Formats: sequence, structure tokens, C-alpha cells
Amino acid sequence: MPDQMQRIVLAKRPEGQPTRENFRLETVAMPSPGEGEVLLKVLYMSLDPYMRGRMDDAKSYSAPVAIDEQMGGGAVGEVIESRSSRFNPGDIAMGMFGWGSHGVVAASELRKIDAGVAPVSTSLGVLGMPGFTGWYGFNEIGKPKAGETLVVGAATGPVGSMVGQLAKQKGLRAIGIAGGADKCAYAVEELGFDACIDHRATSDAKALRKELSEACPDGIDIYFENIAGMTLEAVLPMMNVGGRIPLCGMIAWYNSGALGAGETSGPDRLPKAWRTILVNRLTVGGFIISDHFDRFADFLAEVGPLVGNGKIAYREDVTEGLENAPDAFIRMLGGKNFGKTIVKVGDAG
Amino acid sequence: MPDQMQRIVLAKRPEGQPTRENFRLETVAMPSPGEGEVLLKVLYMSLDPYMRGRMDDAKSYSAPVAIDEQMGGGAVGEVIESRSSRFNPGDIAMGMFGWGSHGVVAASELRKIDAGVAPVSTSLGVLGMPGFTGWYGFNEIGKPKAGETLVVGAATGPVGSMVGQLAKQKGLRAIGIAGGADKCAYAVEELGFDACIDHRATSDAKALRKELSEACPDGIDIYFENIAGMTLEAVLPMMNVGGRIPLCGMIAWYNSGALGAGETSGPDRLPKAWRTILVNRLTVGGFIISDHFDRFADFLAEVGPLVGNGKIAYREDVTEGLENAPDAFIRMLGGKNFGKTIVKVGDAG
Repeated sequence: MPDQMQRIVLAKRPEGQPTRENFRLETVAMPSPGEGEVLLKVLYMSLDPYMRGRMDDAKSYSAPVAIDEQMGGGAVGEVIESRSSRFNPGDIAMGMFGWGSHGVVAASELRKIDAGVAPVSTSLGVLGMPGFTGWYGFNEIGKPKAGETLVVGAATGPVGSMVGQLAKQKGLRAIGIAGGADKCAYAVEELGFDACIDHRATSDAKALRKELSEACPDGIDIYFENIAGMTLEAVLPMMNVGGRIPLCGMIAWYNSGALGAGETSGPDRLPKAWRTILVNRLTVGGFIISDHFDRFADFLAEVGPLVGNGKIAYREDVTEGLENAPDAFIRMLGGKNFGKTIVKVGDAG
Repeated sequence: MPDQMQRIVLAKRPEGQPTRENFRLETVAMPSPGEGEVLLKVLYMSLDPYMRGRMDDAKSYSAPVAIDEQMGGGAVGEVIESRSSRFNPGDIAMGMFGWGSHGVVAASELRKIDAGVAPVSTSLGVLGMPGFTGWYGFNEIGKPKAGETLVVGAATGPVGSMVGQLAKQKGLRAIGIAGGADKCAYAVEELGFDACIDHRATSDAKALRKELSEACPDGIDIYFENIAGMTLEAVLPMMNVGGRIPLCGMIAWYNSGALGAGETSGPDRLPKAWRTILVNRLTVGGFIISDHFDRFADFLAEVGPLVGNGKIAYREDVTEGLENAPDAFIRMLGGKNFGKTIVKVGDAG
């Protein structure tokens, strides 16, 4: 057992796009599990867009990360010391270990992973929080009906790819938006989207709306919102009467300064957005997946077999080494990842 | 039977606040009812904020009024000629006659009014579309629970006063916003609001939020949105997790130019509003009451007796004479009405 571990802390708050200087790799003493707790060696850790929001000192759904505090997040690891009867050394478990090589977590906050069902890394993506986010928002807020049209951004990411594939299975028309021709080809050919629009080849919201109009001849019934920015501006006027907008993220705005403390420049888009919600009788439903863990077993029961038999495809973008997590995170925020962003931190055994 | 009637048409589109020049009173030939139609003499006509939206040449939930076309709207009248077996001369009925002294409407689009239950003018207010709007949005989108806190603007208007009184009957804390000390006193003393804030005595959104914070020590669970503008800006950050926003109007923006064809000046309030919807897991539900007439009988069955026995109070602001409708409408948009705005157009019999 090593007596030290590595972790990455928030060194200073970003202004706009984070850089390496916002993070610091530290070596600290290995923690010991208390009664009911478990020490794990991290195998894979998750990088997710919501983490960008926590780097700002603004009210969010979880408290901001403090300066010099370890970056938080989900990870999957191997138990190396247990003071809980529920876990034994060698068990694989998923929990909120944060950005680190090891972690101590209460056994009650760990979920045991059966490594025989799927690669353990899937517990961070297609069978973890992102997949669950897509499944929950699509079904519970999207209220899909066969024949309707759905649009989702970040279509090859772990949330968007789940939403698009579920939509196709329920008989909807599914249109993706992604950054790059390679991602768009993958969305159509591997994930089964009816069409995918490359926003990098699109100059502005107006041009994007034109492409969406061609891809959505019957308008849009469900806009699964994880992007905001230009995509929201393009989509909103195309929503059909009675449309639904499950809202779980706004990656385009996390880095833009639009959510910062200062005032953003105009025009003020709120009045027209508000009117569109009224005129088209839209329902916008913000949700945070951690409110809904009571439905996680339902999700796994439905989606686990679909992943097992290949009816739900997934793709992972794996970076090796904890020390490379900041670069991988910055790449992801810039849309340069392709699939669920994961850092391989250590090997099992 | 006179051979002519009066009507008011849209003379030109307003820029911002309407003026008398936007309207024109005309005398035209009396129309004749066709088979299945009914000719009515209008007794009372309704003036409602949504009519301002229809004066703009912008997509809305109903087509814009064309230039030289009669202004639309609900009215209650007495049948003077019937070519339908469902109506006889002397019957009182409510329908969409528009701004005019008389009107021909298909019998199938008329609702017969029992003048014995309440004054017939109530079919335009507390027992008509405005009251129904408040009842539907409060119950179906607001999903109220005893002990929660509700905020509604235009608290002494026909929608806001319904919402506030229903909220009190269901055991919620109800906070109104209204323009003027007299309206606020009425909201608290006659309608039973727990408090009412005078937005005319409030300098900006920040000051309004400060007053709301004192009136809503436990935050806000339901914001019944018919105002938008400064009130929305003040309320949104105070919404509790899981809060609901039934959205049926935005009177503050109808006249401000914020919804016009041009770009409005900044700051862009959409990103922060969108983040608040996400972070606080809000549900914003736009609705148009004409989609829900299948529930009108339920509304009347519940609220009719409450109006009859005085448990739901109402107030009407009556102007005499069709020719004075434009002035009354302009007064209402400026918040100078006190109660449901109605024009008395003619006498029965």
C-alpha cells in the first residue's frame, strides 16, 4: 500500500475557457478509511461539462469548488481497504471520488459494479450518470410520442447519443447537432440519427436554423437541451405547439462569460424566448439527475440489456494518466472529445 | 332593427404604447345571420392585455389583426335574430364578437349565459376567460401544495385576483404585485393576499426583490407569470428548487418594444434565466387558455358557486360606450384600470 496519493485541485478560478493554470497536481498523504468507509484505487474518472460550472464562484446546483480544494466528480475504482461489511478488497465500485488516484468514500455512497456485464468504464458513461441523464430527461420531461421530431446537441456525447438512440427506438425522428464531419458521420451511421448537422460548418444561429428546417420538415417537438447558445437560438422558434424542452446543461454558455458575474452584452434574448414559450405552449423543465436516483434501477434494468446486446452503441474518449486530466477537460469543453470523456487513472489488480 | 352597426378597426400598427390613432370607429351595414348563425346586440365587451400582442405583425397564438380589420375579442350580448334552433331572441350569450355594437356568430361558437346566476358581465371576467385562465394555470401547471408560497402580478386584475384567492383557499401563502397603494390595499383587505407589493413605489428589479424577500421568507414555489419584465427579473432567482411558472402573459413587454421586430438592447438576460431554470429545477409551462375549453365546465362547476356565495370576490372597471374602448384599452395597458376592464356597449331589451 503506497503512503501517498495524487490529486488535482482548483488552483484559481477561470475567466472564460479554463487553462492548465487553473489546476494543480498535488501529492498528499494516503487517507485512511474510517468506520463504514472504504479506500479505493481509482481506475477511471469521469470528465463532464457540469464541472466547469462548479469552477465559478456562483450559485449552482452544487456548491462551487473552493480554491485549493480537490476537483469533484465521479470515478470507478477497486476497493483496496474496507471498513464496511458491504465491500471487500478487489470489489469494483463507482462513487464521487473526485480527481484523484485514490479516494475514501462512505460505503453507503458507493455503487457496486458487476464487471461481468460491461466494461467498468461504462459505469461513468452509457450506464452511468450521463446515460441516466439522457434516459430520464427524454422520458420524464420529453414525454416522447412516436412520429415526433427530436433535436439534441452534443449528439455523439454520452447524453446526446443516449437520447438519440432512445428516440429512434421509440419511433421518433432524431436530429443531432455535433461539431465536426466525423462526429456527424458517426451519429448517422453508428447511432442511427436521421441527420446530424455540423455546427462548426455553420456560421450563425440563422444558418443553423436553415439547416434544421431542412432536417425537420415537421418542426421540432422535443429539444433536449444540453448546449444552449446558438443552438437554442436556432431551435426555439422552430418548436411546435406543445413542445417540450428537458434542460440539463448549457455547455456553450459555461465558457462564454454569459453566466458570469458581469452583465453580458445584448441583445436581450429573454423577452422573445419567453414569448415563444408562451405562444407555442412549450414546457421547459430544468432537471438535475442527482434528484432522481430513485429511478436509477429502472434505467439500468431497461438500458443495461440494450448496451449488452449492442442495441445501444457508445463511444469513449480515454486519456491516460491523472496528470493529463486538465488537458482532457479543456479539450472536452472545446468539443474536441469524441465520445464520453474518461481518464484512465490506474490499473486493476 | 337598425340597419347599421358600429365597430372599431385597427387603423395602423402601434410602435410601443398604442394611441387613439391606432384605432378607427366605423359605421357599417348591419350583418345578417346565415343558416346556423345568430345576430347579437353587444351588452359588454372585454378588454384584455393579449389584444395588444395581436396588434403587432408578429407570430402569435392567433393571427395578427390586419390593418382595417375589426379588433377581436370576447363580448356578451343579447340575441336579436336567430337562425339556429339553439337560440331565441332575448337569450344572452358570450362569444368572440370583437369590438363592435353587434355581431354575427355561429351558434356553435356561442355559450349561453344564465343571467340568474351572476351579472352577465362576469362571463367576461371572473367566470369567463380570465378567471378560467387563472384557475387552469394555477391548478394544472402550478400544481399547488398547501404551505407553499405563490407570487402573482396584476394581483387585482381578473387573472391575478383569481389566482390569489384560489391560493389562499388551498392553504398557500399568496403575495401579489400591483400598481398603486389602493390596489395593494384591496388585494390584502378584500382578496385576502398575505401581502401586496406596489411596483410603482419600487425603483427597479433589485428593490422589488428586496421587498419580495421580506414577503416570501421561504422563497417562491409558484410564480404565476402574466407580467414578465422587472417582476420576472426580481422573482426568478428567488424560486425554490422544484418551482413552477405557469406562463400566460407578459404585459410589461407587450408595449416595451422588447417583443418587436428589432433587437433589444442588452444585457442578454436569457443565459442567466436559463441557468436558474436548470439550477433550481424549475418548470416553465406556457399555456393558452383556448386550448383547454374542455375544462371550462369543471371550472364553472367549482368557481361558479364560490362567486355566487361571495367566497371569490371580483371587481370590474366599466367604461361606457364603444367609442371609448380605445381609451379604456390604453388605460388598461398602462395599469390604470382597477379590476377587470369592460366596456358597456349597449343595454338589454
